[in-house]
Amino acid sequence: MTLGSFTGVLVPALTPFKADLSPDRERFLAHLKWLLRQGADGLAIFGTTSEANSMSVEEKIELLDYVIAGGIPPARLMPGTGCCALTDSVRLTRHAAQQKCGGVLMLPPFFYKGVSDAGLFANFSEVIQRVGDSALKIYLYHIPPQTNTPITLNLIGMLLKAYRGTVIGLKDSSGDWNNTAAVLKEFPEFDVFPGSELFLLQGMRAGGQGCITATGNVNPAGIRKVFEQWQTPQADALQAGIDRVRKAIQAYPMVPALKRIIAHFNHDAEWAQVRPPLVRLPEEKWTSLLPELAEAGLGGAAAA
Amino acid sequence: MTLGSFTGVLVPALTPFKADLSPDRERFLAHLKWLLRQGADGLAIFGTTSEANSMSVEEKIELLDYVIAGGIPPARLMPGTGCCALTDSVRLTRHAAQQKCGGVLMLPPFFYKGVSDAGLFANFSEVIQRVGDSALKIYLYHIPPQTNTPITLNLIGMLLKAYRGTVIGLKDSSGDWNNTAAVLKEFPEFDVFPGSELFLLQGMRAGGQGCITATGNVNPAGIRKVFEQWQTPQADALQAGIDRVRKAIQAYPMVPALKRIIAHFNHDAEWAQVRPPLVRLPEEKWTSLLPELAEAGLGGAAAA
Repeated sequence: MTLGSFTGVLVPALTPFKADLSPDRERFLAHLKWLLRQGADGLAIFGTTSEANSMSVEEKIELLDYVIAGGIPPARLMPGTGCCALTDSVRLTRHAAQQKCGGVLMLPPFFYKGVSDAGLFANFSEVIQRVGDSALKIYLYHIPPQTNTPITLNLIGMLLKAYRGTVIGLKDSSGDWNNTAAVLKEFPEFDVFPGSELFLLQGMRAGGQGCITATGNVNPAGIRKVFEQWQTPQADALQAGIDRVRKAIQAYPMVPALKRIIAHFNHDAEWAQVRPPLVRLPEEKWTSLLPELAEAGLGGAAAA
Repeated sequence: MTLGSFTGVLVPALTPFKADLSPDRERFLAHLKWLLRQGADGLAIFGTTSEANSMSVEEKIELLDYVIAGGIPPARLMPGTGCCALTDSVRLTRHAAQQKCGGVLMLPPFFYKGVSDAGLFANFSEVIQRVGDSALKIYLYHIPPQTNTPITLNLIGMLLKAYRGTVIGLKDSSGDWNNTAAVLKEFPEFDVFPGSELFLLQGMRAGGQGCITATGNVNPAGIRKVFEQWQTPQADALQAGIDRVRKAIQAYPMVPALKRIIAHFNHDAEWAQVRPPLVRLPEEKWTSLLPELAEAGLGGAAAA
């Protein structure tokens, strides 16, 4: 049972950029459509893997409107809408709610360090109240390696007490299974998605809802198969297979590597473009990654 | 000799907020005027102490325009214009340049961690080229405790090689004198401002330009006196005096404490308002801070 409309494999979709560094909305739309065709259950656009924090609120609103107009069902979208600035978070979250997105994935404000749970609660609370949409569904985004601003068990408890039905889940990108397990145990009614497919099977067995994973951009079908078959005898072997692909890729800078992979399989060099402060994958790294991918069994990933 | 127009004591001015959390532009303008009357050499608005990252680009542009229209000389302004999103940094920096601000203080993009100097260079480089204003003066903002994205000596060297005359200085908020000393030694022609008055005298003796300091919001005259008299026999005693005030305050959450101090001396409770994720200074902390301030010799700070 899920509280929201999401379960399964969600992909924090990469954002392609043109040579002039502007978002490439046509390639973006094509990529989202390909992901859905490959079996992605949801599209967590504007996540870490999407270089979302390297884009302005305006750029994100324009991309969101474009892909919905282009046929992506809003119910399948979980855009990232948490910004450093309260007013930016309100604006982007309100827009996602107006567009009837299935949910939003919300980072805490991540500039100040050592802020209190009371301060983070106040931030989320202001966003919820200012958006004022009873249909809004928020998934909290716990990614301490980037934010150094954790979503603690205490904070989750505070938010559930005040906003049950609105705050309904968590993406856990801590990379720390003990944290995921603690959230699942403490809040069994919460929709928890590990931030990597490495924890997909383990998460499902402990009551998780699936995963939201960067490498879903290139291996969506493989990861989806583990979700489909997690209760079958093949589950562990399938999980081992997607682990191999993940581990091959995550030894490299994640976003540049994923973009380079798509550029390769799609015969589309422009896909490798990133926005600063990220840099393209150096070609010597690509020459070592490519055979590792083949060995791990990823041969045919391609955006449409 | 300075490369830019700034030397002395710069204050990262607090941003007052109304009860509805909107920026209070009237109180902001009054505070800036008071700081200038007290001897502040420059106003580093939209810094960490200003809760700038809790405001949208639009809010910052509106505040900047308002205070300039209200009589603050643009040449005395060093607004913070570095954002996570390249497009936001370009927009805000361009606006500051168009308004003829004396300089801008630029954070690196601070969401992604472990980014390369090449990626940070590309970010600054894009901003400089897109703004395309030969009068633009950039001070880099090194504040690893918040950003975890250092401005390394190597990066400074890369930027000076490509953009000498545009990239002209650094605010060092590392709190690490060894880093400040290393920058001063390696780049003697660079305008270096420690991010705390604790290093003011030490910095001046090593070739620094002054300081850019949060506590300048409440003790501008005291800090200015050290700058004026740094070459006199009284310098060390004066420095010891401002150190006492700083140390009393920095034992508390900085921004809430500074706002509470101004609210007190100004008999203006609304000044204590902060924007989430920060929270107001709890009253029990204020009851302990107030006598410590008196003991440290800060009795009369007040915004106009």
